[in-house]
Amino acid sequence: MNRFLDLADFSRDEVKDLLGLAARLQSHPDPQALAGKVLGLLFLNPSLRTLASFQSGMMRLGGSVFVVTPGQGTWQLETRNGAVMNGAAAEHVREAVPVLASYCDAIGIRMFAEGKNLEADMTETQFKMMADLCNKPLVNMESAMNHPCQALADWYTMDELKVPERGKFVLSWVNHPRALPLAVPSATVHMAALRGMEVVVLRPEGYALPAPIMEKARQAAVSSGGSLRETTDRGEALAGAHVIYAKEWGSPLHYGNSEAEAKLRGNLGDWCVTDSWFKTAAPGSHFMHCLPVRRNVAVADEVLDGPRSVVVREAYNRMVVQMAVLYKMFRSNSGQSRGRRS
Amino acid sequence: MNRFLDLADFSRDEVKDLLGLAARLQSHPDPQALAGKVLGLLFLNPSLRTLASFQSGMMRLGGSVFVVTPGQGTWQLETRNGAVMNGAAAEHVREAVPVLASYCDAIGIRMFAEGKNLEADMTETQFKMMADLCNKPLVNMESAMNHPCQALADWYTMDELKVPERGKFVLSWVNHPRALPLAVPSATVHMAALRGMEVVVLRPEGYALPAPIMEKARQAAVSSGGSLRETTDRGEALAGAHVIYAKEWGSPLHYGNSEAEAKLRGNLGDWCVTDSWFKTAAPGSHFMHCLPVRRNVAVADEVLDGPRSVVVREAYNRMVVQMAVLYKMFRSNSGQSRGRRS
Amino acid sequence: MNRFLDLADFSRDEVKDLLGLAARLQSHPDPQALAGKVLGLLFLNPSLRTLASFQSGMMRLGGSVFVVTPGQGTWQLETRNGAVMNGAAAEHVREAVPVLASYCDAIGIRMFAEGKNLEADMTETQFKMMADLCNKPLVNMESAMNHPCQALADWYTMDELKVPERGKFVLSWVNHPRALPLAVPSATVHMAALRGMEVVVLRPEGYALPAPIMEKARQAAVSSGGSLRETTDRGEALAGAHVIYAKEWGSPLHYGNSEAEAKLRGNLGDWCVTDSWFKTAAPGSHFMHCLPVRRNVAVADEVLDGPRSVVVREAYNRMVVQMAVLYKMFRSNSGQSRGRRS
Repeated sequence: MNRFLDLADFSRDEVKDLLGLAARLQSHPDPQALAGKVLGLLFLNPSLRTLASFQSGMMRLGGSVFVVTPGQGTWQLETRNGAVMNGAAAEHVREAVPVLASYCDAIGIRMFAEGKNLEADMTETQFKMMADLCNKPLVNMESAMNHPCQALADWYTMDELKVPERGKFVLSWVNHPRALPLAVPSATVHMAALRGMEVVVLRPEGYALPAPIMEKARQAAVSSGGSLRETTDRGEALAGAHVIYAKEWGSPLHYGNSEAEAKLRGNLGDWCVTDSWFKTAAPGSHFMHCLPVRRNVAVADEVLDGPRSVVVREAYNRMVVQMAVLYKMFRSNSGQSRGRRS
Repeated sequence: MNRFLDLADFSRDEVKDLLGLAARLQSHPDPQALAGKVLGLLFLNPSLRTLASFQSGMMRLGGSVFVVTPGQGTWQLETRNGAVMNGAAAEHVREAVPVLASYCDAIGIRMFAEGKNLEADMTETQFKMMADLCNKPLVNMESAMNHPCQALADWYTMDELKVPERGKFVLSWVNHPRALPLAVPSATVHMAALRGMEVVVLRPEGYALPAPIMEKARQAAVSSGGSLRETTDRGEALAGAHVIYAKEWGSPLHYGNSEAEAKLRGNLGDWCVTDSWFKTAAPGSHFMHCLPVRRNVAVADEVLDGPRSVVVREAYNRMVVQMAVLYKMFRSNSGQSRGRRS
Repeated sequence: MNRFLDLADFSRDEVKDLLGLAARLQSHPDPQALAGKVLGLLFLNPSLRTLASFQSGMMRLGGSVFVVTPGQGTWQLETRNGAVMNGAAAEHVREAVPVLASYCDAIGIRMFAEGKNLEADMTETQFKMMADLCNKPLVNMESAMNHPCQALADWYTMDELKVPERGKFVLSWVNHPRALPLAVPSATVHMAALRGMEVVVLRPEGYALPAPIMEKARQAAVSSGGSLRETTDRGEALAGAHVIYAKEWGSPLHYGNSEAEAKLRGNLGDWCVTDSWFKTAAPGSHFMHCLPVRRNVAVADEVLDGPRSVVVREAYNRMVVQMAVLYKMFRSNSGQSRGRRS
C-alpha cells in the first residue's frame, strides 16, 4: 500500500483486512515494527486528534515523527500554480512538499477545502496537486472531500460495538456557527454504505450532499448489499436507527457564500441532537461524531455525557486504525524508503 | 504512583525517596526504562522549561512524547460546563482531555489560574475538572495554585547545595509588570516547610499569601520540625538567610482587578533583589528563582550573573526530578497502560 | 568537533572529510549511532527545511529531538544586555539558553540578522552572545552572516553532480519583496571559493557584498586555487557558468532603511532568473537556490520546474550533511555529554 487517500480505493475485503490488522496490532503490539522509520506530518489546517494520534501511533510502532505547521514556526505556503509570489507566502508547495517528503519515509498531509468553489473542491484539485508532488507513501489526514482515517476508525468502532452490518445508520446534519467542509459527511456516508448498512442522510432543505458524493456512496451500497437514501423527515429517519452519526456541514447551495449560508442556517437551531432523538431508535443505539463538536449547538450535553455516546472511543480508534495504515504502508515499501531520493 | 499533583499528597519520607530515585537515575542512567511508553503534554499556557525538560527527560528514559498546544496548531478549548459553544472554542475539554489521554500512557497538563476569582482558583476548580477527565497517570505541570515539579526540583537543588534542613529560607515577593499567579509561591512555601526549614515569607503590605496556603505550609512545618512566619521587615527577614527565593505574585486583595493591583504595586519598584540584599545573609547563601525572571525588574543583573545565583541549576533539576516522577509513575503502572482504553 | 558555526573554521581537507562522512552515512545508515542522545533546537526565526531536516537527521541516527520556538507556545526572549525587562519579553536568553542547553547533549540555534546595524550583524554580536551562553556542542542553524549547514549541503550537492572543482560558480542577486539578510550569500561565496571554483558575484549597483565578506571569500579562494570577482555585467558573468546560484539580499548601502532599500530595488524586476539566463552557460549547467524562493519574483517557474534546477536535492542534502555534523559532534564528545551539568 503506497497511498491511503480514499477508502473507495479499497475493496470491502481489503478494508476488512486492514481492520483485522488494526485489531491484531492492538492486541499484540509490535513496538519495534517501524524502528528507524520517519513519518512527516504537514498540517495546513489545525488539528487535535490527527496531530496526537498519528504521533502516538507511529511512536508505538517504534518510529519517529516530525510535524510542520505553516504559519506556526514555518511561513505560509503558496498553492496557486503560476503565482507571482510577492505576497505573504514565502514558499510554494512545489518546493516545500517534495523537500519535506525527501526527509521522511512516509508523509501525512492535512489540507481542508478552500470553500470557495464547489467544483474545485469536489475534484480535490488542491490535494491531488500535493499528492503529485510526493514521491513517498502518502496519507490523507483530511482533504477537501475526504477523511479516510476517520471513516476507517468509525467502521472499526462499529465492529467493536457489534453494530449489525445491515443496521440502520443515520447521518444527520447538525447546526454549527459556520459552514464547515463536506469531507467528513462524504467519507462517512460512503463508509457506512460500503459496510453494507441501511444508510439514511437526514438533513434540512438546502443541505443535500452533492450528487456525485451520493452516487459514489450508492455504488458502494450496491456492491455491499446496503442501501442509501436521504430525507428531511427526522421522525422517519431516526426510527429504528442503530447509529445516529451527527455532522455539521455548509449548504452546497451557497458554497463560498457565507452570508447566504448563515441566513439559511438561521432557523435551524433545533438541529441539535438531544436524548429525545433516540426515543424511537433501536435498542442499544449509539451516538457518533468525529469531533471536535460544539456542545449545545450541534449536540446537547445530555447526549455527549450519556451512555449512548461513543465519541471518545471513535477518537481513540483513530490511533488504532492509523497504526495499521502506517504498518501496511511501511512494511509493503520496505527496502525502498531508505535509499537516496531519485 | 498514579498522580503527581501536589507535593502535599506525599509524606516527607516519600518525597525523600523520590529525590533519591532522581539522584540514582542521574548517576546511573536507565536509557531504556520507558521504551515503548508515550507521554502526552497538554499546554494550555506557554512554557519553556516545562516543555523542554519533560520532553528531554522522557526521551532520556527511552520513551516518546507528543505535545498539544491549543491555539498553536490546535483550536482553543472550552472549559465551562454547560456552555453553548457558539464562540471561539471549537472543542470542549470534556472531549479533548479523555481523547488525548487515550493516546498516551501518561499525560501532563499545564493550566494556569484564571485569575478572576480567588476562591475558584484556590480550590483548583479547573485543574480538578481536567484531572477528573483523565483515566491515565497525570502530572501537574503547573496549575492555579501548585507547581509540584518546581517544588521538587528546588528541594533537590537545596540538597545538592547542602543547604541545611533547618536553614533559613526566605521567600521574598519581587516586582513584576503584571499580577502573576500564586502557584509557585504556594508550592514553594509548602516545600520549604516540609523540608523542615525556618521559612519566612517577606512581602509588602497587601501581598500576604491567602490564609489557607499559609495554613497548609504551617502544618507541613509542624510535621517536619520547621517553622513558618511572614513579615514586611526586609532587614529582619534577610538576616542570616541561607536562601533568598524571589517570586512575583499578584496581590490577593485585588485578585482579578488588574487596575487596583497595578496601583498598589506602583510604589514597590525597590522590591528588586540586588547584591545588597545578601549583606546580612548566612555565609554561602544562595539566590533562587523558578524562572522566567524579568531582569532588573524582579532581580538585578548583578545577582543573576553573580556566584549566589543557582537558577540554572534549579531549572536543570526540573528534568532530573521529573525523570524520577515519570519513572515511578510508569513503573508502578506497568501492565495496565498498554491495554485498550476502558 | 564541539561547534559547527562557520565553514571557515575548518580547512578544505576537514570539510572534505565531513562530506565523506556524510556520503558514508548515506550509503551505510547507522540507525543507533546516537541512541540516547538528545538534540535541542531553538528557533528564534521561522524555518521549514532546518526544522524538518535536523529532526529527521537526528532521528535517523537513533537520537531524539525537542524544539523550542519563542512566540509559539514559548514567550518572547530578551537579548539586550542590561535591559530593564518591563516589556513583552518574559525571559532573557542569559537564562533561557543555558537552561535549554542543560537539557540536551547538543543544541542548534537559529537567529537571523537584526537588520538594523550592519556592523553589529557583521560581527555576529547576537549569535556570539548565544554561543557564549552554551556549554554544549552547538550548531549554527543560520545566524546574521552565516549558514554553514546550507553551505555544506551545497558543496555536497555539487560533488554529487560532478560540478568541476575549478568550474564557474555565479552567485547572482535576485529580486525579492523585502530586504533579506546576508547570511546565505556570505556563506555561499565563501564555500564556492573554498571549493576552489571560479566565483563571480553578479549583482546590480548598490548590492555589492560588504568588503569583509568578499575578503574572507578571497582568502579562501587563494588557499584553494580558486578565484573571486564581482560584476554588474550579466552577460559576462553568465557565459560559461557551471552553476547559477540565485539569492536575494538587501542592499548593504541602505541596511536597516527599508524605504530607501525598496526604492533602489524598484527598477530591478528583471533580476528574476529565466531560462534565457542559461543560453551561454556551460553544457549541463545547474540552477541552485537555498530555498524558500519566491516563484516568478526571484526565479521563473520555467527554471524551477525545468531540468537545470537542483533545489530539492540541495534541500535533501541538508539532512545528509547535518547527519554527518551531528555524528561527528556527538561522537567526538562521547563520555562528556551524559554527566551532570557543571
